[in-house]
Amino acid sequence: MTTTDDGAVPEAGPTATSEVEPAGGACQIPGHHHGYIQDKQRYQRRLTRIEGQVRGIQRMVDEEQYCIDILTQVSAIQSALRNVARGLLDDHLRHCVADAAKNGGTEADQILKEASEAIGRLMRG
Amino acid sequence: MTTTDDGAVPEAGPTATSEVEPAGGACQIPGHHHGYIQDKQRYQRRLTRIEGQVRGIQRMVDEEQYCIDILTQVSAIQSALRNVARGLLDDHLRHCVADAAKNGGTEADQILKEASEAIGRLMRG
Amino acid sequence: MTTTDDGAVPEAGPTATSEVEPAGGACQIPGHHHGYIQDKQRYQRRLTRIEGQVRGIQRMVDEEQYCIDILTQVSAIQSALRNVARGLLDDHLRHCVADAAKNGGTEADQILKEASEAIGRLMRG
Amino acid sequence: MTTTDDGAVPEAGPTATSEVEPAGGACQIPGHHHGYIQDKQRYQRRLTRIEGQVRGIQRMVDEEQYCIDILTQVSAIQSALRNVARGLLDDHLRHCVADAAKNGGTEADQILKEASEAIGRLMRG
Repeated sequence: MTTTDDGAVPEAGPTATSEVEPAGGACQIPGHHHGYIQDKQRYQRRLTRIEGQVRGIQRMVDEEQYCIDILTQVSAIQSALRNVARGLLDDHLRHCVADAAKNGGTEADQILKEASEAIGRLMRG
Repeated sequence: MTTTDDGAVPEAGPTATSEVEPAGGACQIPGHHHGYIQDKQRYQRRLTRIEGQVRGIQRMVDEEQYCIDILTQVSAIQSALRNVARGLLDDHLRHCVADAAKNGGTEADQILKEASEAIGRLMRG
Repeated sequence: MTTTDDGAVPEAGPTATSEVEPAGGACQIPGHHHGYIQDKQRYQRRLTRIEGQVRGIQRMVDEEQYCIDILTQVSAIQSALRNVARGLLDDHLRHCVADAAKNGGTEADQILKEASEAIGRLMRG
Repeated sequence: MTTTDDGAVPEAGPTATSEVEPAGGACQIPGHHHGYIQDKQRYQRRLTRIEGQVRGIQRMVDEEQYCIDILTQVSAIQSALRNVARGLLDDHLRHCVADAAKNGGTEADQILKEASEAIGRLMRG
């Protein structure tokens, strides 16, 4: 299989450049670090593994493997992604949300609103 | 970011080589084609895009972007994976399961059991 | 707590009366029985228990109990409902879908399409 | 259909009586109100409707209606329950979690941990 890695359209969504005021600005106050950053390498390893799992499915499709085996792999990726999301959300609550709540004000409201909406999206799977 | 693509442990699960009797043998009767095969290129495109989305998240973590933006991307990947799974399952029902049901017997029972279990796993997300 | 059971708007959706041609007519051919019917009493017991769980949550809200304990109960109901859905779907595949596939034709296509759409809805949770 | 409402085993889980120190004690400090309480009547109405939907499914099973129509109703209940959970969680974050975060200490840690675990359960559906 010739993986056309270069052809991959990243679709990575909001890729805030340094000029642009990032979303979640309230969470970017000087001296503040996103909760996940202390585990950055661990998240990278998990994401690299998920990327490999997706490539594994591409190979299974290429080799015309049994549909159910492919679906089993899709379920495994969904589970791995859910764990990444849980970790990120847990770190976010303990750091960004907790810090914002201490400071209060409209920034805290905004941070809480965004967290709540993200949880709603994740509950849909 | 230096993506260690080569270092990715595929974890692709059951990679049946041609010597090994594949799981889902009942679905591999001569002349039978898995339902998804007629759309093989479309699935490959969707999976390549998902792979790019996972790499996009790696970059977001690397750039220490806002947690919620990363979670939004995780939700987008989950949604894309769910659509791939729905498509594969739909093709599987229309081809492998329908063909097996016509033939009946213990092979049909086995195929139906495997389909039902896969659906159960996918319903958990 | 005074349960206003009578006030409950059933919202039970398609309540096909005997005059109306039921949806899933292909699955209603004479002599055909829906797969779940042989387990009818077991499904009723499980649904009665779920109904009791929902009433339990109403009481918890009434008693102003801790939010997280209420959410734990919601998760338990979701899990119980998912199991009911898995059972119904499994029975449906083994009986209605398998029978329709044997007969073939546009009825089989319709039954397969409906099953696939139902699975898609259940995969969203 | 004679609904055996009395026979329902509530299984309502932690039904803290007034003698017992409730779980989430940190969230029960004097003067503190759970976030959902200001919307108590609205939650009760939604739960009463869900209870009616569950009874509607019991009737559909009793009348041996089409499997797929029953599954459609199960999906509708799951969606309604998810919305209740989202509402409760949102209220919980804005009130209990935000208040606890302001106060800090081990109580805040405990509240955040419980919230994070509840979210994890809800993400599984």
